[in-house]
Amino acid sequence: MQDKNYKENFLLQFGHNLGKIRQSKNLSFRSLSQKCDLDYADLNKIEKGKRNITLSTIIELAKGLEIHPRELFDFYFPLQDLKE
Amino acid sequence: MQDKNYKENFLLQFGHNLGKIRQSKNLSFRSLSQKCDLDYADLNKIEKGKRNITLSTIIELAKGLEIHPRELFDFYFPLQDLKE
Repeated sequence: MQDKNYKENFLLQFGHNLGKIRQSKNLSFRSLSQKCDLDYADLNKIEKGKRNITLSTIIELAKGLEIHPRELFDFYFPLQDLKE
Repeated sequence: MQDKNYKENFLLQFGHNLGKIRQSKNLSFRSLSQKCDLDYADLNKIEKGKRNITLSTIIELAKGLEIHPRELFDFYFPLQDLKE
């Protein structure tokens, strides 16, 4: 349960941060999807924390947003949330 | 082809960086696997760039290494490698 919680929380925070970056670049889901190899409906689900995406998808997002992949992880996530 | 190359390169660099962090913490594959919910044989493959891991696995690695997930992406990866 605890295990599920911190993973879900991490996906939510990842998605929230992705949305912030996308909006800061004035990109719609559709315009971002055209800049990378991802479907715009999937982008929506990623931002909602509903997709457990892979490194391949992370690199596609970075490509579309023209950022280093690291920036996709630049959000607050305290280590204690990882303790079981 | 180009597409495949930058993704493969990214997985390799991710794995290399993971290995550096693991070693800096004096953890063997086996001791790291005991600190997170991952198999030590898989850890070896991730470090070799042979696994396209998910966010769930990334958070497990961060948990085992006691670092923010962002640090797993703290390596040089020039944006031009993402251009097609």
